[in-house]
Amino acid sequence: MTHPLEYLRDLCRPNASKIVLVVLDGLGGIPLVPGGLTELETAATPALDTLAAEGITGLHVPVRPGITPGSGPGHLGILGYDPLAFTIGRGALAAAGMACDLQPGDVAARGNFCTVDEDGLVTDRRAGRIDTGENKRLCRILQQIEIDGVDVFVDTIKEHRFLLVLRGSGLSAGVTDTDPQTTQVEPRPPKPVHPEAHKTADCVLRFVESAQKLLAEESSANMVLLRGFAGRPTWPSFGDVFGVHSAAIAGYPMYRGIARLLGMEVLAQANTIEDSISLVRNNLPGFDFFFVHVKATDSTGEDGDFEAKVRAIEKADEAVSALRAMNPDVLVVTGDHSTPARLRAHSWHPVPALLWAPHCRPDGVTAFGERACLAGALGLRFPATDLMPLALAHAGRLNKFGA
Amino acid sequence: MTHPLEYLRDLCRPNASKIVLVVLDGLGGIPLVPGGLTELETAATPALDTLAAEGITGLHVPVRPGITPGSGPGHLGILGYDPLAFTIGRGALAAAGMACDLQPGDVAARGNFCTVDEDGLVTDRRAGRIDTGENKRLCRILQQIEIDGVDVFVDTIKEHRFLLVLRGSGLSAGVTDTDPQTTQVEPRPPKPVHPEAHKTADCVLRFVESAQKLLAEESSANMVLLRGFAGRPTWPSFGDVFGVHSAAIAGYPMYRGIARLLGMEVLAQANTIEDSISLVRNNLPGFDFFFVHVKATDSTGEDGDFEAKVRAIEKADEAVSALRAMNPDVLVVTGDHSTPARLRAHSWHPVPALLWAPHCRPDGVTAFGERACLAGALGLRFPATDLMPLALAHAGRLNKFGA
Repeated sequence: MTHPLEYLRDLCRPNASKIVLVVLDGLGGIPLVPGGLTELETAATPALDTLAAEGITGLHVPVRPGITPGSGPGHLGILGYDPLAFTIGRGALAAAGMACDLQPGDVAARGNFCTVDEDGLVTDRRAGRIDTGENKRLCRILQQIEIDGVDVFVDTIKEHRFLLVLRGSGLSAGVTDTDPQTTQVEPRPPKPVHPEAHKTADCVLRFVESAQKLLAEESSANMVLLRGFAGRPTWPSFGDVFGVHSAAIAGYPMYRGIARLLGMEVLAQANTIEDSISLVRNNLPGFDFFFVHVKATDSTGEDGDFEAKVRAIEKADEAVSALRAMNPDVLVVTGDHSTPARLRAHSWHPVPALLWAPHCRPDGVTAFGERACLAGALGLRFPATDLMPLALAHAGRLNKFGA
Repeated sequence: MTHPLEYLRDLCRPNASKIVLVVLDGLGGIPLVPGGLTELETAATPALDTLAAEGITGLHVPVRPGITPGSGPGHLGILGYDPLAFTIGRGALAAAGMACDLQPGDVAARGNFCTVDEDGLVTDRRAGRIDTGENKRLCRILQQIEIDGVDVFVDTIKEHRFLLVLRGSGLSAGVTDTDPQTTQVEPRPPKPVHPEAHKTADCVLRFVESAQKLLAEESSANMVLLRGFAGRPTWPSFGDVFGVHSAAIAGYPMYRGIARLLGMEVLAQANTIEDSISLVRNNLPGFDFFFVHVKATDSTGEDGDFEAKVRAIEKADEAVSALRAMNPDVLVVTGDHSTPARLRAHSWHPVPALLWAPHCRPDGVTAFGERACLAGALGLRFPATDLMPLALAHAGRLNKFGA
């Protein structure tokens, strides 16, 4: 079986170049008022503007036109993995988001604490979105559950959401959801979708029955719903596909988890943008590729705080300036999706991107902004997955295709 | 089995139109200094600028974004064959490059003259890149090899490289390389990858053993390594897919070979651009489609000679003017890849393209250059394989799709 990255893997060649990819999470925006400027267009970004003038720019589509990406697919796209080809079960994504290192053979699922009435019918699939502290208390209760021959891990995600991981031999992710996705019905029994999943379905049933008993007297939530059973994806690793020794620098568990799923080395936790810069500087000799994640551009957008997002972009511009001073061979700056403050959420709008390298063919764009990027040589709706091959090409890391 | 060109074949209709495709090999470039002009932007190209003003322009991607094409894939793309879908084994490509007409059933391989030590371990996979004259002498020695029921052809490519062709009934290309791709190990024995290849693997073993004996006392190279066993590709012909009677005009064996692989009629060898113009003029009544190859734009780029490439483009501009004067219905001018003089090599940069025809919808571009083409109606990173359908459409050679 070939996969979409096969032809690239065959072309990669090592060299001494350094590639830095800076992901300004949720970078893209829209104006607050018709005719206004976006957050990026408003921000003073001298370093990014210089890179845009010397390099090539454009707007990428992380998944497909019109599709608003979650954090997982958004990052997969810019890291070169088409999110529609490299899908990931909800359980595995939840594990990645918790920086829980799934082992081959593990089965993970997303759990909800919920409420059921005396007949066992679901009354609230989210148990009134119980607070995270209460979730932690309930998880400690569930952690008592024992299943013969299988290790059980239960961990709080947030509010009503938790992560379940089963570890043991002979497990399979081929088990149906117990979450009925509606109320006034019973949770569904877990069913194997193929014979190899019988044992796992039994374990899940045991877990659910035990949870029901242990939570029976709780007032906040008295049952659990499970969905998205998934194992660790068996994807080709980033290093294998692109021929680079790669380091990830991020502060949040989700991004650290995605990097780990791709086989990147995840460096010490970066709590500030200054931490991230120091981590790149100190590790520059040891790696070919750095994925540097900046969260503030997204969280300010999600808060609907246009001005704070502008400031976050201006701070990121200083960081980009510091990274450029380290003389990488290729510097890519983009986002994993747009998060317009006006929408207070991720959106489908294409994402500004710039690629700087000595051998870029200039495109006449002299500023880094949504409108300016429309005229850039990368194109105004290019697939995010093009970024990695282009970065490798500009780093001299791809052999000629065919003679 | 359908192939990617099937839908087009069904739409083609004949008419009296003439299409001329001029391939300026390695056309695209980059500036020598930041903010400078490319070779094409520097050149005075009145004919191309006029065609750009009257026609449509853009920049094509020959294979995939970031991929630097070899001559084979680069030409396949602009001739409408996706180079990732229509792959060609190294042996068959080497044969095409030698203008060796592989027959159906032939098996070809790329050979290296190499050196082995007294234990038979490879010491130099390229025998110190022996000169081409020495290669010819050694090939004459190998040409003595006889294998029952199979014709053996050995021909010099260049330096240490040669072409082996086996011709006979019941042959198969399913044989593994004997080239171990490293030194200090023995050459690998040729193995069949499926039962139908047993006979061929035996023949190859016989060839290798005979070569070892015949070369044993030679000082320059005393062994051979073989790789890329391949038969003639069984592709749909250019004429069959696009419904045109096509002629190829080229001076170099590689391009003549590719044209022959696609079933084009290869006209007399064109040693100069004036030869090429005459060949088009003299053959205009007999063909619907002309593929005219110009080499100088690439070789000057490979030499790193910016000024010479500018002059080669200016000379090509005069040729285009002469071709235009022959009143073709559609005139396409592009390259098979970029060869920036600054890089002295093929590159991944998108390639300027123009399509002129009476029914083009004008796009406002008035010059033929990399930056100007960014604004053209063909798009700034369009797949090279779009050129052929667009040329046919503008020639009135495609039926409506659907009722």
